[in-house]
Amino acid sequence: MIYFQSDYVEGCHPKILEKMAETNLEQTPGYGNDDYCAGAREKIRKACGREEVDVHFLVGGTQTNATVIASILKAHQGVISADTGHIACHETGAVEAAGHKVLTLPSKDGTITAEQVAAYCEAHAASTSREHMVQPGMVYISFPTESGTLYSKEQLTSLYAACQKYGLPLYVDGARLGYGLAGSRNDLTLPDIARLCDVFYIGGTKCGALFGEAVVIARESLKKDFRYIMKQHGGMLAKGRLLGIQFDVLFEDDLYEKICKNAVDAALKIRGALEDKGIPLYVSSWTNQQFPILTQAQMQYFSEHAAFEIWEPIDEKNTAVRFCTSWATTGENVQSLVELIRNMPI
Amino acid sequence: MIYFQSDYVEGCHPKILEKMAETNLEQTPGYGNDDYCAGAREKIRKACGREEVDVHFLVGGTQTNATVIASILKAHQGVISADTGHIACHETGAVEAAGHKVLTLPSKDGTITAEQVAAYCEAHAASTSREHMVQPGMVYISFPTESGTLYSKEQLTSLYAACQKYGLPLYVDGARLGYGLAGSRNDLTLPDIARLCDVFYIGGTKCGALFGEAVVIARESLKKDFRYIMKQHGGMLAKGRLLGIQFDVLFEDDLYEKICKNAVDAALKIRGALEDKGIPLYVSSWTNQQFPILTQAQMQYFSEHAAFEIWEPIDEKNTAVRFCTSWATTGENVQSLVELIRNMPI
Amino acid sequence: MIYFQSDYVEGCHPKILEKMAETNLEQTPGYGNDDYCAGAREKIRKACGREEVDVHFLVGGTQTNATVIASILKAHQGVISADTGHIACHETGAVEAAGHKVLTLPSKDGTITAEQVAAYCEAHAASTSREHMVQPGMVYISFPTESGTLYSKEQLTSLYAACQKYGLPLYVDGARLGYGLAGSRNDLTLPDIARLCDVFYIGGTKCGALFGEAVVIARESLKKDFRYIMKQHGGMLAKGRLLGIQFDVLFEDDLYEKICKNAVDAALKIRGALEDKGIPLYVSSWTNQQFPILTQAQMQYFSEHAAFEIWEPIDEKNTAVRFCTSWATTGENVQSLVELIRNMPI
Amino acid sequence: MIYFQSDYVEGCHPKILEKMAETNLEQTPGYGNDDYCAGAREKIRKACGREEVDVHFLVGGTQTNATVIASILKAHQGVISADTGHIACHETGAVEAAGHKVLTLPSKDGTITAEQVAAYCEAHAASTSREHMVQPGMVYISFPTESGTLYSKEQLTSLYAACQKYGLPLYVDGARLGYGLAGSRNDLTLPDIARLCDVFYIGGTKCGALFGEAVVIARESLKKDFRYIMKQHGGMLAKGRLLGIQFDVLFEDDLYEKICKNAVDAALKIRGALEDKGIPLYVSSWTNQQFPILTQAQMQYFSEHAAFEIWEPIDEKNTAVRFCTSWATTGENVQSLVELIRNMPI
Repeated sequence: MIYFQSDYVEGCHPKILEKMAETNLEQTPGYGNDDYCAGAREKIRKACGREEVDVHFLVGGTQTNATVIASILKAHQGVISADTGHIACHETGAVEAAGHKVLTLPSKDGTITAEQVAAYCEAHAASTSREHMVQPGMVYISFPTESGTLYSKEQLTSLYAACQKYGLPLYVDGARLGYGLAGSRNDLTLPDIARLCDVFYIGGTKCGALFGEAVVIARESLKKDFRYIMKQHGGMLAKGRLLGIQFDVLFEDDLYEKICKNAVDAALKIRGALEDKGIPLYVSSWTNQQFPILTQAQMQYFSEHAAFEIWEPIDEKNTAVRFCTSWATTGENVQSLVELIRNMPI
Repeated sequence: MIYFQSDYVEGCHPKILEKMAETNLEQTPGYGNDDYCAGAREKIRKACGREEVDVHFLVGGTQTNATVIASILKAHQGVISADTGHIACHETGAVEAAGHKVLTLPSKDGTITAEQVAAYCEAHAASTSREHMVQPGMVYISFPTESGTLYSKEQLTSLYAACQKYGLPLYVDGARLGYGLAGSRNDLTLPDIARLCDVFYIGGTKCGALFGEAVVIARESLKKDFRYIMKQHGGMLAKGRLLGIQFDVLFEDDLYEKICKNAVDAALKIRGALEDKGIPLYVSSWTNQQFPILTQAQMQYFSEHAAFEIWEPIDEKNTAVRFCTSWATTGENVQSLVELIRNMPI
Repeated sequence: MIYFQSDYVEGCHPKILEKMAETNLEQTPGYGNDDYCAGAREKIRKACGREEVDVHFLVGGTQTNATVIASILKAHQGVISADTGHIACHETGAVEAAGHKVLTLPSKDGTITAEQVAAYCEAHAASTSREHMVQPGMVYISFPTESGTLYSKEQLTSLYAACQKYGLPLYVDGARLGYGLAGSRNDLTLPDIARLCDVFYIGGTKCGALFGEAVVIARESLKKDFRYIMKQHGGMLAKGRLLGIQFDVLFEDDLYEKICKNAVDAALKIRGALEDKGIPLYVSSWTNQQFPILTQAQMQYFSEHAAFEIWEPIDEKNTAVRFCTSWATTGENVQSLVELIRNMPI
Repeated sequence: MIYFQSDYVEGCHPKILEKMAETNLEQTPGYGNDDYCAGAREKIRKACGREEVDVHFLVGGTQTNATVIASILKAHQGVISADTGHIACHETGAVEAAGHKVLTLPSKDGTITAEQVAAYCEAHAASTSREHMVQPGMVYISFPTESGTLYSKEQLTSLYAACQKYGLPLYVDGARLGYGLAGSRNDLTLPDIARLCDVFYIGGTKCGALFGEAVVIARESLKKDFRYIMKQHGGMLAKGRLLGIQFDVLFEDDLYEKICKNAVDAALKIRGALEDKGIPLYVSSWTNQQFPILTQAQMQYFSEHAAFEIWEPIDEKNTAVRFCTSWATTGENVQSLVELIRNMPI
């Protein structure tokens, strides 16, 4: 069985474990106040091209989203998100548990537009009963989105302009940021992201780390007291250095960038094979997730050899499924999957 | 400088890192549904002497407390705790953030009694305005307590009987459980704990793991849907096997027990030196934390050679401080501290 | 100017004020523990044909919804509602503020079906990642709905059967219950409602009272500790007798039923005039709210003489508006509106 | 039986019911946007001597406290209060339900001091683990306090200065404000209160209204979006004019002041009789609540003729009880109670 279920089926890049072993019995202060965290922060600031940003390390994505959102919103505010957004669908209501509504905008491919945000805000402001509705307080997007799609520099620029116009901080969930930056048609760099939003996070868990996400706070007014909220949300790791070490390794010699490219290259080979075979794709993803639409028979065929994820029923006969690669996907496994696709009965 | 600040200044027991390295590129399902977690659960059930308990793995203590408490309480209920309890003092209001009040009982040494719980419940039930007050819904204790003290088997038995009488689930925070079980005057075993409460957790972070806490749910009615609450609180680790591996190693050949004993032995040597020198102790702890009361001059003396924690001002001249050992504390460092104590100017 | 904006533009039925004046200086216990509340409870139980239900009095609709929902759901659960439901749209996120997600089902006319609920629950139960999603914990409907439509006895019976099958308490928001029961094509009685759901409320604010809603809890397991939740949500009125007196008057000699019928009769005259004139209706309502679709010119025409509410833009040229009658709407005002409709330029 | 249990046993001042009856069938906009509310706001601004304050009307005290506090605090902040404060004891955890901790300061007579607040803030700021604790975000006091005591102008001035120094908005719960202002040794006026805090409310429910509290927001930065929070907390009354009418009547010709003085005069007669008889008082109150300490036999004696409230057990033999007067207390009933006291067996 070869695994293409998700991008968190393996451990981490071996260099991380080496460094952990090497430093294991060192004694350091807790809660992120150690030199490894300081070093990793420095590297991330440099990679972002912004020396003044704040960088915090948390353990996982749901925790990070809940923490960042709780740190920004006031009690009567909600967060605008695509209806496909991770916070809207797959975090067991963590945002609501912190008291806030997710205000969803319809999206097919996972992205939302400046126009949608503007229209929502205008409608809210124009309503005579707006005080009876949740006030939009920030915007959440993911890059890449949950379905592997990307915002172009132009799209993100105009989305951010709309956010600024309506006074809404823009937060980018970068659980798979590395795969987005390495996306074959991507035109955004890390410094672009750091300039075109107020807060974002650099995903580690899915991009080479054992676990860990690095939150980057660019907007000055959102920096204060973030660590209180981290602690309150259970996101302040006692042995914080474990996060510092991981990001320190990942941001040394562009390791993060290099290993993420491997996943995208692998995914594009799979995409090519699917297209050659004439299999329709649910969305056009140029990152590490591919979503072919399969018949029942085709799903059955694949399931005997490869693990994948059911994504979305399309109609009675067809289902979108997900093949997901990672920094650790081997050429051998990709080759096997490509063969499977080629030999698939139509 | 020798470090006695806390029990999370080092990494983890080397066998854990070895096992992580060994299994690093294996592909496993996420979220705790892997074989390593299954194996660790099995070992913990066996160590608890109760095959029917549920075992879940979370990342840290605050997260674990918030998750367990949210899974038990109804909206109008609060959790009874010593006023020195970790949830009452040092979790940035995580319990309140989930909507619940911490109902504190006065405690000097960190423990609460069956009598206190009974009196609280009786007073609540007797009040004609009880509906205007938060209803006690569960009891939280820590073993060992935040100040290193222990419940005896007799004390825990009667406390649990009181909880059962008033219909309150009893939850034991075992962040330092290993050090409690290894405590020199402790008469409770792991199976005792598993029998004398409804939910507890076996602390990993402070007792040999890189991170991780194992929640054991003994009461049947509290088992349902716990994983939803874990996910909502950001406590479901994507690469759940990292937790499974750690507890699997810790519960192999009594490793957890053995390494925790090291910390207690070290702490008792320090205690002995303090007593020989005639230094008063803030509480009488037989576990890995010791709390001498020092003058300003003595604090100054120590701070030049050893890192420790300020605990509690006693009066204008004296302060209780904490020396904390861990599974990793070396005999050499203990010897150095003992020498420092012996040579301390009175 | 004649007012058809809403059903809370007037005070209350004069008999209520008379009774308040008559009893004004009596001294009674607070918080609903007085004889007037007891009497009103008794009358409501009788009107419901169920002697064993619990009856509680709260002040307003949003408060009542938030309180009932908080009393039913567990931390990881959400409430299923039509996307047009009041709790989903017009309560400033009160449900989310209590930590719960509103799980919306698409609805055009304000109702949801047994099939929709069943499909939602089946999909949730079948999902391998259901623990990453909010668990459905109850169902909310309104009777009549926010757009004046009604469930038939058959529809409510099958919806309640679905709720019972999936273990979901059914809660009916009866803010305009009187107008629903008096609806011209309604086939449900108050005892039917009391038998076909688990909790509902009898709206007073919009149906003849100064303010006040009477919550009826039919399901035994939902009764316990409701008053704690009321107090926590600020819904326990100090001078509770004010609520008791109002419902006592409204449920004396079928006053509630009689005065609500006035509103429906008035609304149907307006509906008749609209239909005679060939004005399209947004939904087919047989209760006290009517929703004609008007052009800009028509809206302009009306706005010079009558106050109404903008409901929903239909397209660039047309808008659904609401004309709302109440127990206090005078025949004279209805006649004036009917004339306006007749003379409207097409 | 004569009632001295609480100050909400009667209805309202007759002028209020007259005005309600007189205006009953008028049609007005909802939610506080009517002319009666506008008029009442104007009168309150004038009485406060501050034309620029915002005034909002809510229904009850718990709701008001929860709404104001939720509008001020950030997610990681708590509210400082006397441990006897109403929000700390008697609101079923409404503050916690909104996610915030009540940070209690010890108090015997219900007041807290500038020194206590300063010490708390200094200790928090000085702690190296402050991020692990709830951050103080505002201060709550009540005037008069729950035990009828008052802040002098000097005390309030210095408390407010401390709040300003530490950046904490000061909120005054004025559930019984009228009785405080009428207190026989009070040296604070309504304009003083409006100048010496950031938000306060003028209690109506206990001071002559049927129900209702008028929130006055003096600090500019706290004004924005308050109505959203009101709606979210179920505190925006549909027929808002009912609140406007009541405060309009109460603030016409100093009615509020005059009727509250009646309660204080009555209470002081009772106090005089208690002192003449040599009965100890639990606290020295110069407002409408008096707290004699009675033996079991004395309690028994009174309970045959008068309703009062059990306040606090003092020791095995003695209990503090409360006799409470109101704007509606009759001279006749006071005289009867005074006789009872005089004839009490010692």
